[in-house]
Amino acid sequence: MATPVRIGMIGYGFMGRAHTNGYKRVPDFFPELGHQPVLQVACARNEENIAKFAKQWGYANIETDWRKLIERDDVDAVDICVPNNLHREIAIAAAEAGKMILCEKPISMNTAEGEEMCQAVEKAGVANTVWYNYRRVPAVTMAKQLIDEGRLGRIFHYRANFLQDWTISEDLPQGGAALWRLDAAAAGSGVTGDLLAHCIDTAIWLNGTVSDVTAMTETFIKERMHTLTGKKQKVEIDDACAFLCHFSNGSLGLFESTRYARGHKALYTFEINGEKGSLKWDLHDLHRLEMFDYEDESRLRGWKSIHVTDHSGEHPYMDKWWVPGLQIGYEHSFVHHVADFMKSLDEGTPCGPTFRDALETQKVCDAVLASAKNGSWEQV
Amino acid sequence: MATPVRIGMIGYGFMGRAHTNGYKRVPDFFPELGHQPVLQVACARNEENIAKFAKQWGYANIETDWRKLIERDDVDAVDICVPNNLHREIAIAAAEAGKMILCEKPISMNTAEGEEMCQAVEKAGVANTVWYNYRRVPAVTMAKQLIDEGRLGRIFHYRANFLQDWTISEDLPQGGAALWRLDAAAAGSGVTGDLLAHCIDTAIWLNGTVSDVTAMTETFIKERMHTLTGKKQKVEIDDACAFLCHFSNGSLGLFESTRYARGHKALYTFEINGEKGSLKWDLHDLHRLEMFDYEDESRLRGWKSIHVTDHSGEHPYMDKWWVPGLQIGYEHSFVHHVADFMKSLDEGTPCGPTFRDALETQKVCDAVLASAKNGSWEQV
Amino acid sequence: MATPVRIGMIGYGFMGRAHTNGYKRVPDFFPELGHQPVLQVACARNEENIAKFAKQWGYANIETDWRKLIERDDVDAVDICVPNNLHREIAIAAAEAGKMILCEKPISMNTAEGEEMCQAVEKAGVANTVWYNYRRVPAVTMAKQLIDEGRLGRIFHYRANFLQDWTISEDLPQGGAALWRLDAAAAGSGVTGDLLAHCIDTAIWLNGTVSDVTAMTETFIKERMHTLTGKKQKVEIDDACAFLCHFSNGSLGLFESTRYARGHKALYTFEINGEKGSLKWDLHDLHRLEMFDYEDESRLRGWKSIHVTDHSGEHPYMDKWWVPGLQIGYEHSFVHHVADFMKSLDEGTPCGPTFRDALETQKVCDAVLASAKNGSWEQV
Amino acid sequence: MATPVRIGMIGYGFMGRAHTNGYKRVPDFFPELGHQPVLQVACARNEENIAKFAKQWGYANIETDWRKLIERDDVDAVDICVPNNLHREIAIAAAEAGKMILCEKPISMNTAEGEEMCQAVEKAGVANTVWYNYRRVPAVTMAKQLIDEGRLGRIFHYRANFLQDWTISEDLPQGGAALWRLDAAAAGSGVTGDLLAHCIDTAIWLNGTVSDVTAMTETFIKERMHTLTGKKQKVEIDDACAFLCHFSNGSLGLFESTRYARGHKALYTFEINGEKGSLKWDLHDLHRLEMFDYEDESRLRGWKSIHVTDHSGEHPYMDKWWVPGLQIGYEHSFVHHVADFMKSLDEGTPCGPTFRDALETQKVCDAVLASAKNGSWEQV
Repeated sequence: MATPVRIGMIGYGFMGRAHTNGYKRVPDFFPELGHQPVLQVACARNEENIAKFAKQWGYANIETDWRKLIERDDVDAVDICVPNNLHREIAIAAAEAGKMILCEKPISMNTAEGEEMCQAVEKAGVANTVWYNYRRVPAVTMAKQLIDEGRLGRIFHYRANFLQDWTISEDLPQGGAALWRLDAAAAGSGVTGDLLAHCIDTAIWLNGTVSDVTAMTETFIKERMHTLTGKKQKVEIDDACAFLCHFSNGSLGLFESTRYARGHKALYTFEINGEKGSLKWDLHDLHRLEMFDYEDESRLRGWKSIHVTDHSGEHPYMDKWWVPGLQIGYEHSFVHHVADFMKSLDEGTPCGPTFRDALETQKVCDAVLASAKNGSWEQV
Repeated sequence: MATPVRIGMIGYGFMGRAHTNGYKRVPDFFPELGHQPVLQVACARNEENIAKFAKQWGYANIETDWRKLIERDDVDAVDICVPNNLHREIAIAAAEAGKMILCEKPISMNTAEGEEMCQAVEKAGVANTVWYNYRRVPAVTMAKQLIDEGRLGRIFHYRANFLQDWTISEDLPQGGAALWRLDAAAAGSGVTGDLLAHCIDTAIWLNGTVSDVTAMTETFIKERMHTLTGKKQKVEIDDACAFLCHFSNGSLGLFESTRYARGHKALYTFEINGEKGSLKWDLHDLHRLEMFDYEDESRLRGWKSIHVTDHSGEHPYMDKWWVPGLQIGYEHSFVHHVADFMKSLDEGTPCGPTFRDALETQKVCDAVLASAKNGSWEQV
Repeated sequence: MATPVRIGMIGYGFMGRAHTNGYKRVPDFFPELGHQPVLQVACARNEENIAKFAKQWGYANIETDWRKLIERDDVDAVDICVPNNLHREIAIAAAEAGKMILCEKPISMNTAEGEEMCQAVEKAGVANTVWYNYRRVPAVTMAKQLIDEGRLGRIFHYRANFLQDWTISEDLPQGGAALWRLDAAAAGSGVTGDLLAHCIDTAIWLNGTVSDVTAMTETFIKERMHTLTGKKQKVEIDDACAFLCHFSNGSLGLFESTRYARGHKALYTFEINGEKGSLKWDLHDLHRLEMFDYEDESRLRGWKSIHVTDHSGEHPYMDKWWVPGLQIGYEHSFVHHVADFMKSLDEGTPCGPTFRDALETQKVCDAVLASAKNGSWEQV
Repeated sequence: MATPVRIGMIGYGFMGRAHTNGYKRVPDFFPELGHQPVLQVACARNEENIAKFAKQWGYANIETDWRKLIERDDVDAVDICVPNNLHREIAIAAAEAGKMILCEKPISMNTAEGEEMCQAVEKAGVANTVWYNYRRVPAVTMAKQLIDEGRLGRIFHYRANFLQDWTISEDLPQGGAALWRLDAAAAGSGVTGDLLAHCIDTAIWLNGTVSDVTAMTETFIKERMHTLTGKKQKVEIDDACAFLCHFSNGSLGLFESTRYARGHKALYTFEINGEKGSLKWDLHDLHRLEMFDYEDESRLRGWKSIHVTDHSGEHPYMDKWWVPGLQIGYEHSFVHHVADFMKSLDEGTPCGPTFRDALETQKVCDAVLASAKNGSWEQV
């Protein structure tokens, strides 16, 4: 009989749904785990909305004040799914209450906040993780395995981008429940924290830490109606951000993110070039990993598209799903994250990225924003 | 409050899991429906196995005799997920007991059996559907919409194939629970009923009925150890099958399936060419639909890859899932099928493909196998 | 100093240009060959047209009667670039005059004619080849090498198609200089001789002879204005043709061609599946060969796209061109064919496909057309 | 009768062959032009080598001193195909001698040299162009047309890269005839002048001038044997270079080049994102242009792959070549450049990129190298 991990979910937006779906799938597809999530409490300020959400998804209880949720004895783990400006306070309170914490990314508004949060969870000794879900896309996980095995040799280049096109219209307002990502007060930054943070987390995981950066940001639409005030206000977030960097291992990095790349919806791609081989991945077809292997017979070298759907146990996580050739979706990355969190409880090990791991990404984001502001190279 | 539809599931293999997952996802993602599935009973001969399955997935009860399941008052709908040779008997008994029926494809071992089954459900007046799940891949559903709108004009060509490579080894045995698909006694045929049936169902749905065929089948490995007898026995199924046909609308068809196409895991593709445009689809990247539109400006014509992931309501089913650019997986086709079945109960309409629809596919399969045997063109 | 091979070119259409370009490039890119083509005479009935062509391309002389061209002492090799119904007579006369012959494909209107032509060149002992140019696309040549090395193991499947869309309009006339391919009297057949013949030649080269076929043809537009008569006349050629076949090595074949596949301009593709690997190629990106190698490490298997542009000598012909990554074009296949013909003269060996080789393709075409007419399997 | 333009070619390496091939193809494929190139003199210091080259390609004469070539009365146009450090002196001498000049890119070692060269040709009033050949790839030319028509609307982003992998081995020497591109004394810079210059030229052509940059360069292999000295010497060129920039139109740019991207041979790609649409191109499949058109029907939006091979006159240059679907190669860009140069003589207009145009690219290269050295944003 598995040990229940009673989840207290704060928030019910896009990520609230994705995490909740993750919790619900794990008992079906990872029944062997010794810990299993239970949907205990869902929390949001609007009672009607959260009640509807809880009913739809099967949470046993609701709260309208996150402090109440944290006080409950029947909650083991707190899932923080609210705008970035609320992460710090909730996380610290949850840690002090001895709860495990699964926090949405980016960890915080800035490095200082993140450091406080790290100290809180470390002091409390509670299990913690940050939802950089793309680490658990099987193709990405396999990239990590290949790199760790030394299959690429010395690394020369890493490049990543995350391109979207949903804010091109001038008529789109900023702020409010749906559009807090455009409001600097709630989000801290624009694409840097929302999108580049994903690219940076994966990059650090695959290629190690970043040492210094030079960056450029832009806000293409200077003013937008603010949903909360009803007035046209200056847009304070970055619509686009690009940066160059050095990694500690001597390789060069190139990163870009924007919400103004017409035709791209969620084009998160990365590529890593090493002496012995290269890897590429693209979220738009997330079940594929592209590989170039210099150790192939020379006349037959080329880029190979690996359909990471084998269920024999060789492709990460895929033994849990269907049969070869049948793809999984975006949401499965969250299922895998929950499963790994449960497994980490079974094993008494951390579940990366921990708060401390996520802080490393935050430091890069801060350096990027500082560089864009100052027009200088910045150390991370 | 939704009306529960209590499911009695017979079988627990690959399809048992896929259907069950479908039932479980519908309340989460289609909460507005007036009927909702409930996992009531799971049934299989091996008590230990079915008990484990029921516990993992959350079925409230188990049975070890499908007749008992059908007799139960607490079952509203019977899901037939067992080898093809058992479909007829179970379906007729379920119909006579007034149960709704969701039957795995192909409907039956042959047209005669299928006709009996159709008559049984029609006489009983019970809701019925056959799990040709690919109709509910959003890209495929959108292809149907475009064709029905006349976007392709007069149709000239339809081609489809379903290529796999999992039976190339001579050491693979035939028969038994895992490998009944290689045993003609259980499966009726090889790739024709297993794989081509999918291609034919989609083809008829998109392009209308088939009038005549000429076919070729092959069994590359002539003998395999039979799991049940422990002896090397003749392989009676078709390892590969290809056929040419005329559709009733005057267009030409070309179909192929095999389990000997090295490098393809589940390469189900179709393409349809009309006077005004063409469409292509590939299960290996099922969230994409390729379109060529002759009505585009002439110098800019080309094949367009549509990432069918928009949640605005324009892409079928996708308003239920994530945000643009984020793909869904294979299993979602079953979720959509369950949702549509529930919706059909709300509306009192049939949920295609009904048994009668699926019989049309069976007729083509029978004509194909007859043609391959006789070396002649056969009328459907 | 290379031995000149003085070319007498009969015809000046699309193929006349492509062949002529081939002759002109060889001294530049294959200067080491001991025989080199010289543009000696161009011939066509219309004096003004052929004079203009000769001037543009650099032919030293013109003729308006092909018999005169054949009689000339200053012509070593005759290039037959006229409609199919004229091949037989010219080829036999050229052979009797002791000329080498380079004949456009298909070799003839039918097998009987082709057999006569073979006997004529064999009796005369003259060098001969048929312009099935796709054998000399480097990616296709490399496919041949890999198959001959046994890299694919036992072959199970071969499939090819050649899809176009240029005759969909009812307003397109038939016949005359530009449109003789739609006129059965000039072309013999429609897509079968024009397009499928290419697919068949490559298939036989790569996978051996075909033993029997079942086919289907269609003429979608039944009547078209005839350019020569000015009247609407029945269209006698096949607009589309598909066939199934067995190869002598036991593998299964599937072929299709049409001029009604909206969106495809010259989509010649083939794929071959063997026990140990598979290959795919597509004329639309002719510098790429796709390969699946079962002998790769299992978790890393996938389809590899080989950019066949390496100049190190490992990629066929590519040491003559640019640097890696820089593609060549369609016309280069003709340059390679000319170079190989010159090389065969250096070495005193045949230059495949010879007339005799091309006759094998003609036999398959005849069987295909007979099968389509008779509705039966036909032996080749 | 066309006016001959007698070419004096200085150099005979990779580019010497590519330019020469361009001159030879123009009379065949662009016979309507009023000026036509003639291969008059080839020049290099090594008499044996240049004699062999001249004989192979058909130059009427040779010289071993470029000053002699410039003095000749029978030379109308000088083609400068030697390492970058020789461009300035030859170009100025040729201009003073009243010769037309076709100069290999980059125009010069730096902006100061380039400015001198511009003044020389402008003072002399001689026709001049720089071989940024990629402008004349039909897909790229069509991109220019679409942008000029306003099909993309306001531009937000431009990104380009040029990735190779041929210098990864430590054993590769620097310097000498074959490897002068690794020798700073001959080349001026590494990938910046060799590869990024192409990206920058196209970018300026398509998207206007660049205003400021921040850049990063790297030399991964610090020392290599020098072919001329036989000693291990410091490598002074940049192995890799990346930069961020602002265009004058307010859009953001991102550029990267390297010779250490394992798996890429000549991966020159660009992408431009505008309010109404986006375009992408890739040298590895240079006959394709990818387009996303926001003005498409919303549910059917996607990236379209346009096979730029139509011969109806709608696709730039393609009416001169084959039939739809049949690709051309890398070398055709040079043929088109020659044709356009001849046409510019017919019309008395400049043939872009002129020296003055190419100087704009040089300025960006200089700013990039300065930024990489100084760690600062640099104005162009």
